[in-house]
Amino acid sequence: MNVYENPSPEIIQELIKRPALKLEDLKAIINDVFNEIKINGDAAVKSYTQKFDKVMLDELKVSQAEISGAKNAMPVALQQAITDAHKNVKRFHQTQFSEVVKVETQPGVTCWQKAVPIEKVGLYIPGGTAPLFSTVLMLAIPAQLAGCEEIVLCTPPDAYGNIHPAILFTAELCGVNTIFKVGGSQAIAALSLGTESIPKVNKIFGPGNQYVTAAKQKAVELGTAIDMPAGPSEVLVFADDSGKANYIASDLLAQAEHGVDSQVVFVTTNQDLIPQVKEEVERQLVSLPRKEIAEMALSQSHSVFISDVEHAYDFINEYAPEHFIISSERGNDYISLIKNAGSVFIGNFTPESAGDYASGTNHTLPTNGHAKAFSGVNMDAFMKKITFQEINKEGLKGLGKTIITMAEAEQLKAHANAVRIRLEDI
Amino acid sequence: MNVYENPSPEIIQELIKRPALKLEDLKAIINDVFNEIKINGDAAVKSYTQKFDKVMLDELKVSQAEISGAKNAMPVALQQAITDAHKNVKRFHQTQFSEVVKVETQPGVTCWQKAVPIEKVGLYIPGGTAPLFSTVLMLAIPAQLAGCEEIVLCTPPDAYGNIHPAILFTAELCGVNTIFKVGGSQAIAALSLGTESIPKVNKIFGPGNQYVTAAKQKAVELGTAIDMPAGPSEVLVFADDSGKANYIASDLLAQAEHGVDSQVVFVTTNQDLIPQVKEEVERQLVSLPRKEIAEMALSQSHSVFISDVEHAYDFINEYAPEHFIISSERGNDYISLIKNAGSVFIGNFTPESAGDYASGTNHTLPTNGHAKAFSGVNMDAFMKKITFQEINKEGLKGLGKTIITMAEAEQLKAHANAVRIRLEDI
Repeated sequence: MNVYENPSPEIIQELIKRPALKLEDLKAIINDVFNEIKINGDAAVKSYTQKFDKVMLDELKVSQAEISGAKNAMPVALQQAITDAHKNVKRFHQTQFSEVVKVETQPGVTCWQKAVPIEKVGLYIPGGTAPLFSTVLMLAIPAQLAGCEEIVLCTPPDAYGNIHPAILFTAELCGVNTIFKVGGSQAIAALSLGTESIPKVNKIFGPGNQYVTAAKQKAVELGTAIDMPAGPSEVLVFADDSGKANYIASDLLAQAEHGVDSQVVFVTTNQDLIPQVKEEVERQLVSLPRKEIAEMALSQSHSVFISDVEHAYDFINEYAPEHFIISSERGNDYISLIKNAGSVFIGNFTPESAGDYASGTNHTLPTNGHAKAFSGVNMDAFMKKITFQEINKEGLKGLGKTIITMAEAEQLKAHANAVRIRLEDI
Repeated sequence: MNVYENPSPEIIQELIKRPALKLEDLKAIINDVFNEIKINGDAAVKSYTQKFDKVMLDELKVSQAEISGAKNAMPVALQQAITDAHKNVKRFHQTQFSEVVKVETQPGVTCWQKAVPIEKVGLYIPGGTAPLFSTVLMLAIPAQLAGCEEIVLCTPPDAYGNIHPAILFTAELCGVNTIFKVGGSQAIAALSLGTESIPKVNKIFGPGNQYVTAAKQKAVELGTAIDMPAGPSEVLVFADDSGKANYIASDLLAQAEHGVDSQVVFVTTNQDLIPQVKEEVERQLVSLPRKEIAEMALSQSHSVFISDVEHAYDFINEYAPEHFIISSERGNDYISLIKNAGSVFIGNFTPESAGDYASGTNHTLPTNGHAKAFSGVNMDAFMKKITFQEINKEGLKGLGKTIITMAEAEQLKAHANAVRIRLEDI
């Protein structure tokens, strides 16, 4: 880790930078995938699956027998852990419904706002070395709670045409039974355009590699909504003099093991912690199976000493971390200083991995500084809010003149007429 | 208006289509504007303003004297109307704050979500024939209520380098004093990149022409958030046998006068209304100053008779109108059928123009079918939600095994270690 002490504003601007996504180069490939799938539908999806996942599928959709059989292939302890995590994630997301508040803005003029589920949503779960069943929880639980009518899950098959049982088990636990064996940009294209078997959805959720990210951008251009812009995962750990070096090191390593492009930042008002954390990182690193990945990520990471706590939080808010850990016995003292973060982990006994899996918060969060303007996935993400207004005769009588005056000042006479013609009848 | 009776699913697919935005052709122009402003800042902004708005400005920022002087140039009746509308819009948006709900998902594991203002927002108000001061209300009121620290308003100057007093008056009423004389794609580029005088913002709001729309797309690529994708304004009026032809016609015309590309749709379960509405439209049209524009819009608009009310709402939800008027004495009977709409106007005495100006609801709404996945501008749009979790020793003891089991099944050992190292101390 590179060490900085009370960095200047210029250095801070360098430290908050993230690696640029090079999506421009992928545009031609992605356009081809969308065009092929638009023209040839399922056949094109199968052909891409053969090319990229090395398996020719007869049937894209996972059968009910495959879903039901998944449980038998799962260790009981993992079933239990996923079921426990499911309860917590569901419990937290259930608190996020907004109530309908009807307000009479003036006599006879009633306005309200109602959250309504997005009808059709697509959940993308990446493949790779490990089955990301935790992401199934994080996307399928709020989709189900919101009441989305059609929840479609896409995830790439292995070379035998199978989906990992942990994915299927978790999906079924969340009530999702419409699962397709398709990954990468072809999955995003299929969800955005629709094919004979894969439904076109209104919004696509989920992480993925650069092809998936580029395909989600293309989907946006075509009018499909997406959860949020993507970037490599990040953690920023802040510690004061009550921070614990071995815990901090473990959290930094948990982020670093994700990938070589993982963003790992340590900010402290306690200069002594920097060498201690460094030593602990080195000590803990040796026994990690993903040691090489973590080492690469750490080589580009930063330790930053900022003596003044307000300045430290200026830096943190400017960085706008996806995951923000407050390693302190007085964690709550810092909450009011937080302006920009995806999810916050307070105190010495709240590691990021708790939120990654099981505390109840969502782990699909804004990276790359997007926490300045975006929320993580939550109930809002699966609903849109419709506003309503109902005006009675008394209401229009009271409000009419205001509308007419404003409409005419904007030179929109027909807008004024729509009020006048009604007022004549009152 | 073209008339359809119980259209087939194929015809419905045609009827829900909107005109395609041809933004692809503008990309080169927009890229130039962004590059110029990135390199030359204010000087480039001034040069574009001279080119497009025909005025060379010394100072981009509106002075406090200009803002304070606006009131004197405003008719008292218009001041009063704007002030009344301001009260209603503020009152409605004030009901939209979400409370913080702390939930203990399991003993010792506490999670919550908090809405935090987006720090820096840019509000774009288009120029053109009339001053769109109503849009100032709709964007500045929620920005102010949310507590955004920096609210920047951009709007094009006239040929004398002035901003219309109604814009300045309304901005000041909403507490916005950072106003720049810059319009079009150069305004969006300046807000996205920042210049010497115009601050870089986190999110850009507001309507505009195709150049503004294309520039907002470019801003998204550069990491600036925007309110929503754009498209021409729309109304869909639904009427049953208690709908009133003259009111309906007035609402259709109010939409049609916006622009030649305005989308106007009339759906009814009462076939008799179709010729009555047509006659009323023709009668009311003659006296409109924007008659030619309205006629052009109406020539591409549809009247659709659907005998079955459920089928009518299937069509309406598939269309997903920006503005949806229920012209009926039993308006509330239909609310439960609505799945997709931006803002809904219930009953015979609730014209769209009420919501455009003064009822309290926001008039910045999703067009082009985006109401399927997007909300209109509301308090959520000016805030992001940060999740928090705090776990005590007892909590981690209870949750630890679940996290470790899941992390190891995802082959992320460092994630498990972050829990293990803490459990050793408990």
